[in-house]
Amino acid sequence: MILETAEITVTDAPAFEAAVREAVPLFLASHGCEGVDLHRVVEGPSRYRLLVRWATLEDHTVTFRGSEAFTRWRALVSPFFASPPVVTHSQGIAL
Amino acid sequence: MILETAEITVTDAPAFEAAVREAVPLFLASHGCEGVDLHRVVEGPSRYRLLVRWATLEDHTVTFRGSEAFTRWRALVSPFFASPPVVTHSQGIAL
Repeated sequence: MILETAEITVTDAPAFEAAVREAVPLFLASHGCEGVDLHRVVEGPSRYRLLVRWATLEDHTVTFRGSEAFTRWRALVSPFFASPPVVTHSQGIAL
Repeated sequence: MILETAEITVTDAPAFEAAVREAVPLFLASHGCEGVDLHRVVEGPSRYRLLVRWATLEDHTVTFRGSEAFTRWRALVSPFFASPPVVTHSQGIAL
């Protein structure tokens, strides 16, 4: 499993949250998407982390980003971006 | 639930991972700790994310940080820090 972490600073928190809620089905319908969570950063109330679980890295970077769903996702949320999101991926290490 | 995210860049990945494995019981025995995961960042192989779930913010920032377990945790892992960890906390938003 690959965890996508998108750090997003927003201009309008309630509007952004509503847009993410509307967009959740776009993620869940995408190939390899295993779930999506939204976190708000305690230290910076305009900062969010969108955490998306993908079966593979390419499910996000190739399939989702090349899809119509990605265009719709960005249309929903980008009006509330204060700056471009910073996206990274990580993989769990067995503990 | 509060998610602690510690961004840690390390000097020796295998040694750091082994130290985190040794330290897991210190977290799990701490009041309010609900689980710990270690992720390695795909875009930067010396970068890790330690993700710790706490019942409350104070369980981490007051109780854990003020405990002997925190001193032992730092003694185990800090030899492998390339720079000071960047720690934030976040809270899930209902979607």
